Amino acid sequence: MEKAEEFRSLHQDKRILVLPNAWDVPSARVFEDAGFPAIATSSAALSVSLGYPDGEKIGKEELFSVVKKIADTVSIPLSADIESGFGSDIDQLSDTIRRVIDAGAVGINIEDISDFEEESLLPTEKQAERIRTIRRVSDSLGVPIVINARTDAYRFGTGDESTKFEEAIRREKAYEAAGADCLYPMGLTDKERIAMFVKAVNKPVNVMVRKGAPTISELERIGVKRLSLGPTAMYASIGLLRRIAQELKQEGRYDTLLTGAITFDELNALAKPKR
Amino acid sequence: MEKAEEFRSLHQDKRILVLPNAWDVPSARVFEDAGFPAIATSSAALSVSLGYPDGEKIGKEELFSVVKKIADTVSIPLSADIESGFGSDIDQLSDTIRRVIDAGAVGINIEDISDFEEESLLPTEKQAERIRTIRRVSDSLGVPIVINARTDAYRFGTGDESTKFEEAIRREKAYEAAGADCLYPMGLTDKERIAMFVKAVNKPVNVMVRKGAPTISELERIGVKRLSLGPTAMYASIGLLRRIAQELKQEGRYDTLLTGAITFDELNALAKPKR
Repeated sequence: MEKAEEFRSLHQDKRILVLPNAWDVPSARVFEDAGFPAIATSSAALSVSLGYPDGEKIGKEELFSVVKKIADTVSIPLSADIESGFGSDIDQLSDTIRRVIDAGAVGINIEDISDFEEESLLPTEKQAERIRTIRRVSDSLGVPIVINARTDAYRFGTGDESTKFEEAIRREKAYEAAGADCLYPMGLTDKERIAMFVKAVNKPVNVMVRKGAPTISELERIGVKRLSLGPTAMYASIGLLRRIAQELKQEGRYDTLLTGAITFDELNALAKPKR
Repeated sequence: MEKAEEFRSLHQDKRILVLPNAWDVPSARVFEDAGFPAIATSSAALSVSLGYPDGEKIGKEELFSVVKKIADTVSIPLSADIESGFGSDIDQLSDTIRRVIDAGAVGINIEDISDFEEESLLPTEKQAERIRTIRRVSDSLGVPIVINARTDAYRFGTGDESTKFEEAIRREKAYEAAGADCLYPMGLTDKERIAMFVKAVNKPVNVMVRKGAPTISELERIGVKRLSLGPTAMYASIGLLRRIAQELKQEGRYDTLLTGAITFDELNALAKPKR
């Protein structure tokens, strides 16, 4: 409970909360060691690291086993990306929330996607009801988790840019009324639009880093309260691995492999719990 | 069986076999996509990615579940690093070998360490007997796995450099007589010593990349048949993650994060099996 409140209060600061997303124990430990006050998981990065594509292809057992490993290792609050909740009905969703709390996470990302292949959205009222359920279940378990309500209306909605933007606002207003703590309009990168979005809602707004998105100080200035990395740290890691592999295979050299690398002892230390 | 023979024959080539070590599905897929003809796991990297320090702290279930995920995903031969065999007696070792084969790996690394904390070595004859057991068990299961027999005599032995070097040779000769396919004198980085070692034994020799070690073409010239990466690709990945984390935390910028990164679709594609 204290950790959930600690995490919630990080959203009220004048300074933007930079929330890095990890996918396994060592990536989480690197971010904690760098001094971040909280951490999240990325569903895409975590799923792919275990051999599943993104989009709820991973099973709950495996997902929460990794969430628990990370929560058991770091000492800072952890938020779990649970995609669209891993369940089409309220019972399944409630089970997911129980697992979040059992694993030791104190926050979630929840999306309003109804079908990952069709890229279709849940009706707004249905998603608002799911958020009320999450609020009720988590509060009744004594851990008032921080709900980051993501909408994909700006990506998967219909109509032109403005119509989709308005739909994203309309949805997020319903989600904040349902008990969300933080609002995440996925795909919004334009500075003016982000500023308009922040003004249109009452709760803290989450934005994801992206090429062409505003800088961190610009985001802070327009009132964004939280910046997440999504799977980008894994995109960067895999990019480096590719360069290492290509240099090794095509040029028979291993310079990139050894440049800026950590040592065996430093690697091993990442498996030692901080808490 | 065919895959085991395919992997074995890669050790007979005039060209050195560069064998990259992965720790999860996406890292394995990156190396396969780059064109490497075979791949191995690194025990240190794999263990730490699951939250355990190196040195047989991970359980067999978890270890082989990842080995199986990788083997199920890649189409090239896979060698599994099984440290010192995960078992002090022959029955436990045999169980480990059965799990290697069930998981779909066609090769192993086996060390002659008796105690990871004390950094002590098994008696040579004991380790030779273990290698004979591995040979017998794997052949009886119809998968003649490639045994890479590692000695830590050059690191953990007693006496001066020369004495330890001689001990490494003495041990590896016993291991090749016991049925090892490849010999791995851990810690050997000096070009002259490596060349002497290659001449002293009959089977292919494995060397690990390391700062100050000979280049790939030099290793090839002195007759080294296999070069492995050990956990170095993960050392490099974590090094990059640290730089990303520090830039983000200390400078409030995310340039390194976005430089040379792959895309969401490219990440997701790494979870799709090649075979």
